[in-house]
Amino acid sequence: MTGHRVTMLGTGLIGLFYTMTLHGKRGRDRVHVVYSRTPERAEAFASEWGIPTSTTDLEEAIAHPETDVVVVGLPNDLHEQTMELAARHGKSILCTKPLARNAVEAKRILDTVEGAGVFSGYLEDLVYTPKTLKAAAAIEAGQIGKVTWARSRETHPGPHSAWFWDAEKAGGGAIVDLGCHCIEIIRTFVGKGNRPLEVVCWADTLVHPIEAEDNAIALIRFESGAIGQFEVSWTFRGGMDLRDEVAGTEGTAWTNHFLRTGFEMFASGEGGGYVAEKAETASGWIFPVGDEVVELGYVDMFADMFDALDGGRAPRETLYDGYVVNAVMDACYRSAQSRRWEPVALEDWRGTGVEPTTRTRREHDGKVVIKEEQMPDGRRKLILKDESSGAFTDAVVDA
Amino acid sequence: MTGHRVTMLGTGLIGLFYTMTLHGKRGRDRVHVVYSRTPERAEAFASEWGIPTSTTDLEEAIAHPETDVVVVGLPNDLHEQTMELAARHGKSILCTKPLARNAVEAKRILDTVEGAGVFSGYLEDLVYTPKTLKAAAAIEAGQIGKVTWARSRETHPGPHSAWFWDAEKAGGGAIVDLGCHCIEIIRTFVGKGNRPLEVVCWADTLVHPIEAEDNAIALIRFESGAIGQFEVSWTFRGGMDLRDEVAGTEGTAWTNHFLRTGFEMFASGEGGGYVAEKAETASGWIFPVGDEVVELGYVDMFADMFDALDGGRAPRETLYDGYVVNAVMDACYRSAQSRRWEPVALEDWRGTGVEPTTRTRREHDGKVVIKEEQMPDGRRKLILKDESSGAFTDAVVDA
Amino acid sequence: MTGHRVTMLGTGLIGLFYTMTLHGKRGRDRVHVVYSRTPERAEAFASEWGIPTSTTDLEEAIAHPETDVVVVGLPNDLHEQTMELAARHGKSILCTKPLARNAVEAKRILDTVEGAGVFSGYLEDLVYTPKTLKAAAAIEAGQIGKVTWARSRETHPGPHSAWFWDAEKAGGGAIVDLGCHCIEIIRTFVGKGNRPLEVVCWADTLVHPIEAEDNAIALIRFESGAIGQFEVSWTFRGGMDLRDEVAGTEGTAWTNHFLRTGFEMFASGEGGGYVAEKAETASGWIFPVGDEVVELGYVDMFADMFDALDGGRAPRETLYDGYVVNAVMDACYRSAQSRRWEPVALEDWRGTGVEPTTRTRREHDGKVVIKEEQMPDGRRKLILKDESSGAFTDAVVDA
Amino acid sequence: MTGHRVTMLGTGLIGLFYTMTLHGKRGRDRVHVVYSRTPERAEAFASEWGIPTSTTDLEEAIAHPETDVVVVGLPNDLHEQTMELAARHGKSILCTKPLARNAVEAKRILDTVEGAGVFSGYLEDLVYTPKTLKAAAAIEAGQIGKVTWARSRETHPGPHSAWFWDAEKAGGGAIVDLGCHCIEIIRTFVGKGNRPLEVVCWADTLVHPIEAEDNAIALIRFESGAIGQFEVSWTFRGGMDLRDEVAGTEGTAWTNHFLRTGFEMFASGEGGGYVAEKAETASGWIFPVGDEVVELGYVDMFADMFDALDGGRAPRETLYDGYVVNAVMDACYRSAQSRRWEPVALEDWRGTGVEPTTRTRREHDGKVVIKEEQMPDGRRKLILKDESSGAFTDAVVDA
Repeated sequence: MTGHRVTMLGTGLIGLFYTMTLHGKRGRDRVHVVYSRTPERAEAFASEWGIPTSTTDLEEAIAHPETDVVVVGLPNDLHEQTMELAARHGKSILCTKPLARNAVEAKRILDTVEGAGVFSGYLEDLVYTPKTLKAAAAIEAGQIGKVTWARSRETHPGPHSAWFWDAEKAGGGAIVDLGCHCIEIIRTFVGKGNRPLEVVCWADTLVHPIEAEDNAIALIRFESGAIGQFEVSWTFRGGMDLRDEVAGTEGTAWTNHFLRTGFEMFASGEGGGYVAEKAETASGWIFPVGDEVVELGYVDMFADMFDALDGGRAPRETLYDGYVVNAVMDACYRSAQSRRWEPVALEDWRGTGVEPTTRTRREHDGKVVIKEEQMPDGRRKLILKDESSGAFTDAVVDA
Repeated sequence: MTGHRVTMLGTGLIGLFYTMTLHGKRGRDRVHVVYSRTPERAEAFASEWGIPTSTTDLEEAIAHPETDVVVVGLPNDLHEQTMELAARHGKSILCTKPLARNAVEAKRILDTVEGAGVFSGYLEDLVYTPKTLKAAAAIEAGQIGKVTWARSRETHPGPHSAWFWDAEKAGGGAIVDLGCHCIEIIRTFVGKGNRPLEVVCWADTLVHPIEAEDNAIALIRFESGAIGQFEVSWTFRGGMDLRDEVAGTEGTAWTNHFLRTGFEMFASGEGGGYVAEKAETASGWIFPVGDEVVELGYVDMFADMFDALDGGRAPRETLYDGYVVNAVMDACYRSAQSRRWEPVALEDWRGTGVEPTTRTRREHDGKVVIKEEQMPDGRRKLILKDESSGAFTDAVVDA
Repeated sequence: MTGHRVTMLGTGLIGLFYTMTLHGKRGRDRVHVVYSRTPERAEAFASEWGIPTSTTDLEEAIAHPETDVVVVGLPNDLHEQTMELAARHGKSILCTKPLARNAVEAKRILDTVEGAGVFSGYLEDLVYTPKTLKAAAAIEAGQIGKVTWARSRETHPGPHSAWFWDAEKAGGGAIVDLGCHCIEIIRTFVGKGNRPLEVVCWADTLVHPIEAEDNAIALIRFESGAIGQFEVSWTFRGGMDLRDEVAGTEGTAWTNHFLRTGFEMFASGEGGGYVAEKAETASGWIFPVGDEVVELGYVDMFADMFDALDGGRAPRETLYDGYVVNAVMDACYRSAQSRRWEPVALEDWRGTGVEPTTRTRREHDGKVVIKEEQMPDGRRKLILKDESSGAFTDAVVDA
Repeated sequence: MTGHRVTMLGTGLIGLFYTMTLHGKRGRDRVHVVYSRTPERAEAFASEWGIPTSTTDLEEAIAHPETDVVVVGLPNDLHEQTMELAARHGKSILCTKPLARNAVEAKRILDTVEGAGVFSGYLEDLVYTPKTLKAAAAIEAGQIGKVTWARSRETHPGPHSAWFWDAEKAGGGAIVDLGCHCIEIIRTFVGKGNRPLEVVCWADTLVHPIEAEDNAIALIRFESGAIGQFEVSWTFRGGMDLRDEVAGTEGTAWTNHFLRTGFEMFASGEGGGYVAEKAETASGWIFPVGDEVVELGYVDMFADMFDALDGGRAPRETLYDGYVVNAVMDACYRSAQSRRWEPVALEDWRGTGVEPTTRTRREHDGKVVIKEEQMPDGRRKLILKDESSGAFTDAVVDA
């Protein structure tokens, strides 16, 4: 029943969400040390959340003798050196997403951490939303048949912190910020053992005066034939659009994590001063989310991480997953430049092969059944193909 | 950081939900003793949930020296004697809803427990759903102005356990089973200090061959003029319909807790064998809920209860609230018989008065402004009443 | 293929909607004469809609030799004298809703018009929305079993024209303005031959400084045992809420006619100047309706009226229906005063009796089956009642 | 007030929809001659719809002296010869979608019909749905700013008639069948004068045993920088998914034409035998559409066509639009083969240039404003870029 003591690196929005989650309802794990580059922020954060120790010394934070887990919530360009340090001090490492700015950096991180033999996990919260977990379980159980297509969409009007907009620090724009979520969600639905083979990607800077892309769309072709599709944008208006759609040979799954979750409010603006988070307006129709740290997956994510650590098993999301995501993003950037499909370069692929998505071939009266549908009178209508002549016909048969 | 050790009384659906919640993600409170009337169920439950002690002896369970909190998850007819016992043993008491079968019984329970000076709480989970908590906070902050109307609806095809159908054990039918939720949700939205004055109620047994009502609708008039409205049914088809709607002078709030929460699946039925909970079918379009114990309020409810206990404060939901709910339900049953409005009999009312729901009277050109609306060209259209002549006119004015 | 020539009485919002519909897409019926009390409005309306004749003389408009149909779109207090005149001139009469200010007036109108032997129809558009017609057909075909409950809700921030607010001219407030729609929608779903027996109603003036009610809720008990429920308000914020819900022993039907019809827009307010109709704001999330005269039933309504006239049959909605609606509304006002259930006084009831809503009694092992549900493993769980002992038990049986 | 007499070529699903629309509510245009290849179908269709003349002779049908308009509702491989014949006989021509099997064929048709100087129109119904028309008007008025992205999705389990599955007759698979709708919807939202420059497309045959593609996704880059995205599938499960989404610099528009339009039913399957159209099941939750010929645009489409013919103007959708659509589809097929972006080859482009999608550059304190957002306290947070140093910072300013 004992919990873990955590060193939290970073006091930005992600560090805040992580700490809110850990110090949330009746939990037994606690942030014990917090690090920020500026002493004021470190102290204010420690004071607000009841954290005993705050520091501006990164190694001191990591090496603190009373913590066993280091959570990396720093800008992307600091991930590698931070995790190297944490690995050297033998701490368990949980790293925010994306793992790195590109696959080369990600691979070095992976090798360092795995080489050090410490526990590690990849904090991809959106794979842990309660809806995603339940949908993934249903899909894994075969309820929608073989997955043919998975769409993941994350769009909003742009990030809150300045460093996200700096392509050098971030490693890119909307793809690196939002696409990393989408890619891992898509992998979750098509199956993590399903190798991403190649990618075609469009990226453009349509609205903001920046170098990095503020809009991108990509298609990812997997070994099974399934296609992944992500849409990311820093120019969407109307809040945060966070939706996934999956099509299978026997069904469909749709999840909406933000704008339409069964909670709707209209305010004339002449009542009190409450402002819904991530809504663009404080009046009119707004669509709040119940408990954000639950709905966005933070609670289930940390539960899995600490349970995995306690249980001596790998968590659902590992640094290796982070590396695969970086490799897919690299292919996206290459494709946006080359304007053609680009292979996903994975020097280390740990999957063991999947079956292609095909349905059993059936015959009726010596012809191939193309499609079968139920008619209102209970009979079945078949579309048939005569393979010798190539002719298509239909036939109506009793049920 | 230490938690509580709980005696769980009852291993039915509600005991299961409570235990799932307490033993859920990284929590620090634990069920330590479980009681059931049948030894097999007690043992199986203890084994499934890793509970050290199981027993069929009620007093032994309550008096167990290693637990400090007793959770009452037994049929309604056993609440009074159980809480009397728990109070006598000085335990903290958390009682499931409804508190009792009627207000007289509820008042005796309240007096006993309050008299004993022990901590107590009323386990009304639906007031604690993340959506309800956030909507209540927005409403309390005045965002939708003064509440004029609150509708709470809970309907499904009927309860799972036999005793619910027995009016003697339960104290009634759908009103006692479901209406108790609705009444407390309505009180949460109109304000708990807003006295429920009177009730008109229709109740009928339309479908099931039982004596108790399987359908009921009631209106509750509050001191402020606000009207509460609940609809309960054991004959609804299509899953569980759990929706609340609130209207205020400056806005509107709608919550949907089950059927349309942004998670939708279609299954042909020819894929795998997953069955969504509380759906009536395993194929076709189904509407799962992400994490039920979160979405239905159990997590936030127990967090508030234990935090209140630790913090020496009253929880959001007290046994007194349970007593008020019983008094409203008693008035519903009287009204269903008398076929007229019936006063809510509350010998112990702890509210301190509320203001009536009225808007400020405004004048324009010596006439009363009845309504004002914005026109497409930006001007404002006023409906006016000349109080001396009684005549209604309209006028268009510049913005 | 020839159409009808119409005398349109009234140039308010309803006259506008009617004329938009008749002069809409490729129709063959036309407004030929328009009447308004003020010459400017009559002329402007005629000019805008290409109507050959305009007049301020009511009888001249009605008696015009080149029109065969008179559409009454005047305030409620003018209905009786207008229809008397139209009947005397032998014209076909289509009257807007409500038919009259009360049932006595409605009955006199009915007798006059039926006595004159002219064709007549009741322009209750909301019964003719494409969704309502299709839902009604499905329900009539038995798809949701026997109807047990029908809820109809119409709420908005209050009417646009001054006379609606004048209880003397209108005959009442929100009940007369909006409840008349709801009552006829409810009758459509529970069956028009299903006699409305009695009513309980709450009405109050919560927000606007008027005498008439600005909010009301009523329950209507029908001969079959089915319950109707309507909610009307002139104080709703957020647009126009126009929803119906029907519960049956074998299913459920929900329709939403305005706020959530699959069309959603967000506007920052810094783009162009389009304003969505009936939305309270021009920016933020708004919910437009595709083609309002279609979606609100006007197109199907007039098609039925003229087809009935051409085909020598009664339309779906007759003046008799209008009379029944007035009788229900009268009972609502009586109940709001007496504060108890009040009978619906119908001196002329043309229904021929309906069966009560009951399900077949089934037995299992000598016990009555209270409820049956499917379990995840395919087996069935039965709740049983032993009629001799009164005891409730459950049993699990193979499928 | 006189209407048109139509020769209907084809009695399949599309001919049925067209005739239902023309013979619908109080219309003044009528099908006067119907042609089918088989005499039984021609006669049965004529008899069902009250059509005076039926024939199996194509030229006789086209040349019939009592009709002035020919509607082409035949398989794609018959379009060219049919329209050549109709043009030769000087008839007005309305052609179903797609115009042809490829752009070369489409261009020949266009030249023939335009050369003959007869009136013509392209029957792209989905551009005429009431929601699409209203959304397009709002977008044209600038309400959502400059369009950056338009997604159009049409997926269902596959077509009903055999010839659709025959790539030779149809000209392709799901792209030709469904993509033609999506492309024209996208053009409607990004602006028809906005030249489609290039395309990248994925197409695959994942489920059905056919040669043609049963799934495809394409991106279309327009002159303004806007990106179009279509998703088509013959393997979707759950009914027909028909949705459009548009993003602009100042807003968002979403339309759902089929599965979620505010009409929802649950049926246990033990009630009556009604089956919802295009639903895959007759029980469970189903999502009917109100009036299909209205909601899918047929009514507004024919109204525009005949009004244009009567008014001596071009209709909203012309054969030229059909040609552009074919050219985009040709580029899709080329891209699916070449696996790279392919130019859209348009030898005849009639647009006159559009402005690129860019927002005004603003400065604050000598730095470029990257993003501005409102904070809960009313102040504004700016993300700024120092163009000389390239550094990103943020600043909070008073409103």
